[in-house]
Amino acid sequence: MRDRTQYIYRFGDGQAEGNASMKELLGGKGANLAEMNLIGIPVPAGFTITTEVCNLYGIHGREAILEEIKSQVEDGVRHMETIMGTEFGNPDNPLLLSVRSGARVSMPGMMDTVLNLGLNDEAVEGVIKRWGKPRFAWDSYRRLIQMYGDVVMGMKPESKEEEDPFEEVIQQLKDERGVTLDTELTAEDLKELVARFKVLIFDKLGKPFPTDPWEQLWGSIFAVFQSWGNDRAQVYREINDIPHDWGTAVNVQAMVYGNLSDNSATGVAFTRDAATGEDIFNGEFLVNAQGEDVVAGIRTPQEITLEGSRRWAKLQHVDEAERAANYPSLEELMPAAYKQLIQYETRLENHYRDMQDLEFTIQEGKLWILQTRNGKRTGQAMVRIAMEMLEQGMIDEPTALLRVDPLRLDDLLHPVFEDTALEGAPVLAQGLPASPGAATGQIVFFADDAEAWAEQGRETILVRQETSPEDLRGMNVAKGILTVRGGMTSHAAVVARGMGKCCVSGAGALKVDYKTETLRVNGTSLQKGDWISINGNTGEVYPKQIPTREPQIGSDFAKLMDLADRYARLRVRTNADSPEDAAMAKKFGARGIGLCRTEHMFFEGDRITAVREMILASDEAGRRAALDKLLPMQRGDFEGIFRVMKGRPVTIRLLDPPLHEFLPHEMSSQKEMAHDMHVGVDTIKEKIDKLDEVNPMLGHRGCRLGITFPEITEMQTRAIIEAALNVMQDGIHPTPEIMVPLIGRQREFLQQEKIIRDAAESIFQERGERIEFKVGTMIEIPRAALTADLIAESAEFFSFGTNDLTQMTFGFSRDDVGKFLPIYLEQGIMDYDPFKRIDENGVGRLVDYAARNGRKTNPGLKLGICGEHGGNPESIDFCERIGLDYVSCSPYRVPIARLAAAQAFIKNKS
Amino acid sequence: MRDRTQYIYRFGDGQAEGNASMKELLGGKGANLAEMNLIGIPVPAGFTITTEVCNLYGIHGREAILEEIKSQVEDGVRHMETIMGTEFGNPDNPLLLSVRSGARVSMPGMMDTVLNLGLNDEAVEGVIKRWGKPRFAWDSYRRLIQMYGDVVMGMKPESKEEEDPFEEVIQQLKDERGVTLDTELTAEDLKELVARFKVLIFDKLGKPFPTDPWEQLWGSIFAVFQSWGNDRAQVYREINDIPHDWGTAVNVQAMVYGNLSDNSATGVAFTRDAATGEDIFNGEFLVNAQGEDVVAGIRTPQEITLEGSRRWAKLQHVDEAERAANYPSLEELMPAAYKQLIQYETRLENHYRDMQDLEFTIQEGKLWILQTRNGKRTGQAMVRIAMEMLEQGMIDEPTALLRVDPLRLDDLLHPVFEDTALEGAPVLAQGLPASPGAATGQIVFFADDAEAWAEQGRETILVRQETSPEDLRGMNVAKGILTVRGGMTSHAAVVARGMGKCCVSGAGALKVDYKTETLRVNGTSLQKGDWISINGNTGEVYPKQIPTREPQIGSDFAKLMDLADRYARLRVRTNADSPEDAAMAKKFGARGIGLCRTEHMFFEGDRITAVREMILASDEAGRRAALDKLLPMQRGDFEGIFRVMKGRPVTIRLLDPPLHEFLPHEMSSQKEMAHDMHVGVDTIKEKIDKLDEVNPMLGHRGCRLGITFPEITEMQTRAIIEAALNVMQDGIHPTPEIMVPLIGRQREFLQQEKIIRDAAESIFQERGERIEFKVGTMIEIPRAALTADLIAESAEFFSFGTNDLTQMTFGFSRDDVGKFLPIYLEQGIMDYDPFKRIDENGVGRLVDYAARNGRKTNPGLKLGICGEHGGNPESIDFCERIGLDYVSCSPYRVPIARLAAAQAFIKNKS
Repeated sequence: MRDRTQYIYRFGDGQAEGNASMKELLGGKGANLAEMNLIGIPVPAGFTITTEVCNLYGIHGREAILEEIKSQVEDGVRHMETIMGTEFGNPDNPLLLSVRSGARVSMPGMMDTVLNLGLNDEAVEGVIKRWGKPRFAWDSYRRLIQMYGDVVMGMKPESKEEEDPFEEVIQQLKDERGVTLDTELTAEDLKELVARFKVLIFDKLGKPFPTDPWEQLWGSIFAVFQSWGNDRAQVYREINDIPHDWGTAVNVQAMVYGNLSDNSATGVAFTRDAATGEDIFNGEFLVNAQGEDVVAGIRTPQEITLEGSRRWAKLQHVDEAERAANYPSLEELMPAAYKQLIQYETRLENHYRDMQDLEFTIQEGKLWILQTRNGKRTGQAMVRIAMEMLEQGMIDEPTALLRVDPLRLDDLLHPVFEDTALEGAPVLAQGLPASPGAATGQIVFFADDAEAWAEQGRETILVRQETSPEDLRGMNVAKGILTVRGGMTSHAAVVARGMGKCCVSGAGALKVDYKTETLRVNGTSLQKGDWISINGNTGEVYPKQIPTREPQIGSDFAKLMDLADRYARLRVRTNADSPEDAAMAKKFGARGIGLCRTEHMFFEGDRITAVREMILASDEAGRRAALDKLLPMQRGDFEGIFRVMKGRPVTIRLLDPPLHEFLPHEMSSQKEMAHDMHVGVDTIKEKIDKLDEVNPMLGHRGCRLGITFPEITEMQTRAIIEAALNVMQDGIHPTPEIMVPLIGRQREFLQQEKIIRDAAESIFQERGERIEFKVGTMIEIPRAALTADLIAESAEFFSFGTNDLTQMTFGFSRDDVGKFLPIYLEQGIMDYDPFKRIDENGVGRLVDYAARNGRKTNPGLKLGICGEHGGNPESIDFCERIGLDYVSCSPYRVPIARLAAAQAFIKNKS
Repeated sequence: MRDRTQYIYRFGDGQAEGNASMKELLGGKGANLAEMNLIGIPVPAGFTITTEVCNLYGIHGREAILEEIKSQVEDGVRHMETIMGTEFGNPDNPLLLSVRSGARVSMPGMMDTVLNLGLNDEAVEGVIKRWGKPRFAWDSYRRLIQMYGDVVMGMKPESKEEEDPFEEVIQQLKDERGVTLDTELTAEDLKELVARFKVLIFDKLGKPFPTDPWEQLWGSIFAVFQSWGNDRAQVYREINDIPHDWGTAVNVQAMVYGNLSDNSATGVAFTRDAATGEDIFNGEFLVNAQGEDVVAGIRTPQEITLEGSRRWAKLQHVDEAERAANYPSLEELMPAAYKQLIQYETRLENHYRDMQDLEFTIQEGKLWILQTRNGKRTGQAMVRIAMEMLEQGMIDEPTALLRVDPLRLDDLLHPVFEDTALEGAPVLAQGLPASPGAATGQIVFFADDAEAWAEQGRETILVRQETSPEDLRGMNVAKGILTVRGGMTSHAAVVARGMGKCCVSGAGALKVDYKTETLRVNGTSLQKGDWISINGNTGEVYPKQIPTREPQIGSDFAKLMDLADRYARLRVRTNADSPEDAAMAKKFGARGIGLCRTEHMFFEGDRITAVREMILASDEAGRRAALDKLLPMQRGDFEGIFRVMKGRPVTIRLLDPPLHEFLPHEMSSQKEMAHDMHVGVDTIKEKIDKLDEVNPMLGHRGCRLGITFPEITEMQTRAIIEAALNVMQDGIHPTPEIMVPLIGRQREFLQQEKIIRDAAESIFQERGERIEFKVGTMIEIPRAALTADLIAESAEFFSFGTNDLTQMTFGFSRDDVGKFLPIYLEQGIMDYDPFKRIDENGVGRLVDYAARNGRKTNPGLKLGICGEHGGNPESIDFCERIGLDYVSCSPYRVPIARLAAAQAFIKNKS
């Protein structure tokens, strides 16, 4: 070991040896404590033992380290004694300490905190003598023994079934005393507890609780270092890619108490309003209390500012006299401390340049700031605070952009439950948060019922085992969708997101019985017509009606979006299948359509009849006759979309799903279809049987349809090109991009491209006019990514279909992952759902490989992504890093993607 | 253009300017014609125009080329005149020519042949004068016009529906004459045809058939060059990766005729017996005939050798007197020509060092050899010829090994139809050749019936929509298996190959009706009990009983296998799930087991009951109770396998299929199961419903089972390790390799590995003894291949599961590809079925990537392949090139793989 290394960094009384930039050495907490001292914030004195010591401990062990750092730690304690005017180990005027771990990043699984170090049978008397508070003193002491016994000495319950041993002792004493609450225990009772705790420890461990303050301190310090290497912490680091050699620092700090007298208090405060973002200081406090009391909720906290207090009183119908008497503000009660607090909150916000969440304690009139951190806030507050701080000159544009969590923009775009309404609502089941928002309605099990009830003005939640394209119209009118099966990219989830409609999918605990129209779970049974509510942000399902409110978009939102567009390099397009979707997405700022799924158009109105005629046709001529009926309808759709999008690019994907998706599942619908088509129901069934597939995901779909039935590709090309020529007459210059789905091999693309170009050319000949268009492909099959160099020889663009690419690269059926993915996430085998966020190390390697090799062959290749990942901020960051040109997502995700694109650019520029 | 380039290479009369090594310049045919001359074989004189001219033609066009090569071609013709003693264009003694294309490799789509060039209205008279054969002369002339009109002048039918225009004219004349066969037309009739053909051409094209011999010759030459660039040829080259600049050569050769007199003849001969491989010269001929007559089958050809003739007579019950009178051998009839023929066949075989297939013509007593090529032969002949030639010192060991097509070894391992029995058998339907061999039996539709009938000694073919593990026992007793659905790697196909049983899968035209137990196709309807025959080598299905015969394995086979093992670097293991399979594979030379699928064991006897108990169990305790019942049975299986394999490596894959595969499909079986399990049938149905998956291929299976139900992994590990310890007591030292299936992520592997090692360790502790074992994984998910570097950190071996890897890399469900893969193959979008032969450019890239990256992390990593590709010669060659350690295939494929491994080593060494 080296000599004279500085192992501890002291702080207190406006001085500090460290600062905020020293997180690597001092950990996050230590660096921040030092920093607060440097800007004149009164923080209880203390010192930080460096992360370096943790690493040395791992190599050399306790004895060597003790020798190495002993004198420095003793110096540190003397430093605190000087500042605090107390003495560690002096029973008459004891300095009491806290020990806390503090790594570079917050990390669960490690030893957390030991408080009140320095207390023992003598010191507790000293404390009583000094403050005259026996109950306070004994309570502090028994807490020390309990915490120390648990985290340092390892007094844990021996199995999951067992209670905490200390709590058992407490319960026993309460039983003896005939009381219920801890607070009902007297000073004498707490003294008794101390005695019993000591016996418990000795009986169990064969060694006593250490009453020597120094032994307590060293025990706690080494327990922190020890905990760095424990199993849970190691696993956590492995999962989160945190290097083991970062180590943790240890913070030793003087205790202060807000529960010493009526001139003491404790509280939390926010420099701005965490709900609305309004620039107004606010917070709560309790007189003669400690932090836990605020959390425990036994006493009603009071407002810090007079203004806040008056507003509170009004809401609670408390008159001013009663308020001033029983719930005065800190401003009124302790004006000097309040004045200081105002000064410090302003200083802290100006220093950290963000809304701060403070914890403070007033000990006998003296204000101490215990902690400051960036405050949590609602999406609305996030936007307002960022834009106002930018206007106030506190932060620059990139910082303002980075301040808003893109996902939280959902709060501004979708309905939410009334806050109060949710309180105490029992959760019926937990599913996946498939599409954001909140919805409440009456249960229906069939899409037809949703439609019928919607016409009667009733609000419904469509509950299904899983949804299929047949359910589209019902989904459209329901307030929300709840499915038993299916993951984040199941049909229900994808369609719901496209509609901006709340959806919870994969709520596997539910049992749906279509015959009796009953929904069962854990003994509860709900019928058609019963009220239910779902939260698409959390996946929670409630068996009752919970009022929702519409979101409010303020002007700050528009400013934020404009700013984002000025910084983003990636363009944001949308996935839209109809002129209505396109218009919505354009309102949200989409620069084009990245994915127009033509099959969704096939379900509208009576088109499905023509589609089914095509499927039933026994030869090409029959198929062509049916396709001829579809042509004008599809052409009309494209015209509508081109008109909405003006000249912006529109990527249209040719027919993708397997044909059986267009045939009815229910017997009654099959009979209906047979009747409509003038064939026997056996013919329908035989066809359904013939089209049935073991693994439809890997079956006869995508370009495999266009190759086996070229007339479909021909008709769709005709609809696109004719639509483009038609709108051109109105001065619109559309730029269609025809996308061939599910290509796995260059020759598939060549075959389809030829059909498309030939069809287009013959239209140009017929009409004597032409337009520019592109032909490209989805890259959604691993083989396509692996041979992208070849496919790019002809394709003019690639759109990465990362939904299917994820399914095939992982071998995960998005409809079936519900059986194991939740367990994978729980066990840490996966860190996140790869259908939500792109799996960079696997799927991402393929995307990157394909992008690079595609551009090698064809430097002008346009690259985008149109899977669900196109609206996921982490995935957008990945797209930025590998240099894609655009991302495409559902309309309601467009704002999120615009912001994420800006953030990705800013983050990766440096 | 350059001066004095040699554009034509002459040959004839024992001289030649080219030779066999000049294929690039002269094409295959031209080089071979030259070579025959050089070794003294009498070949009609001629010359070859080089491939270079073809390329120049492509650039400079006809006129420039004509000028460039005219004098050399004229020289070439003069060269022929000198040798043949005739004169091109001289009507009194005309030299008649053939023109044939001949590229470096044989290539369809190009102009093939024009015969009898030089004939016109005058020359035909000269021919009559010289040979006195008007019918011969006019027939030759009309053939010239017909061929020339077709291939040079483009007189093709205008649509698919139309007849060939010349054939229409012939038919019309036959109608007029009231005759049926071409041979019934007289010399006068043929003269009339010539006249009508000329009118036809002039009417249709507005230009006459060229009567100038030189114009005929040039027309034919340029037609060959032209055809190199036509669409069909270009597409063929693209599909087969043949460079466009190879070009084709043109062979111009003097005509000779076997139909001039009774001193003329034509025939084919083989230097060894093509059926048995016996070293005996044999063949057939016809007196006064041309080649087409032998093919047409109107006259019965005679045997060339006396010995052959006598053998033939005996078989046909023809007595010696009649034979000598009506069917004399060439040896008797034309002893001089025969003697020469014997001399030449010996010389040719010695020269080419392979069995030759000769075409010869005797024109007025003079023997001409028209062609020699390596003869086609049966698998049995292939082996015998190779081994005998090796013994005779004609070829070396590597050559002998390369001479045998590994796939043809199937002929020696599986039953085949009696040759004669097949003749004229109508093909009912065409499926995929899923498992080789021939089988005949009575139709049954249910596995139970197959078992019941087998007990009665009846032979059955099990006909199913598709098979499932429930059908295993029935499959085992049926003679063959026929399925409507499923590809080359469907359940039926894989299991049948494992059993060495004939199987035709994916015969999509068939309609199976289980209710009425009827099989329907194109109007034919077969019932349970009707006879049917299937050919697993061709995929053909016949609606009748066709006798089969057992194969014969001779001593040459064993010699070949020993030789192969001395050359192979890749080891060959087998996929075997039972001691019986293992024993069979060991007999075939397997060096270990590369894949033991534990789930197959779950179906035997009443184990399935315990498996179902496990599935129905609602908690871990219930599952453990069921698993405890399975443990001793599974342990017994492993003991049996370890005993058979002695110390050879045995790779055991943990449970892989989704659990629903173990539950009954049929209502009746579900009821039975409910009864056995003492639960309601609703419970069973509910479970089936819960386990049902949209895409089972991508669902809850493989290690996902072991991760969600760790007790399964534990039980299986216990069975393996205990079995290994048990057999050790008998002096056997097994080397189990425990394989975790369907890994996609390192953490999945780590979780399973820990369970396995912990379970093993606790057994070692219990028993106080230990064994070595390995833990590795299948690489069958694209993501596993992409992250092989990480997985290899812990895995001790990789076994590439290329079936699933192909499914996921292509996005092809092996059960559903039947709907489009045949069309892909037909249209040339795919060159081969990627489930049969590994797709090097896609799946192969992944395998190679994983192998390289895996070894980078773990240089000792053992690498093998256990998909269907492990028994496919092209794929084995790929495995050799990327340096895998072993391949594993079904027992009956082991000999094929051993030979293919030797060939791969030999081919890639150089």
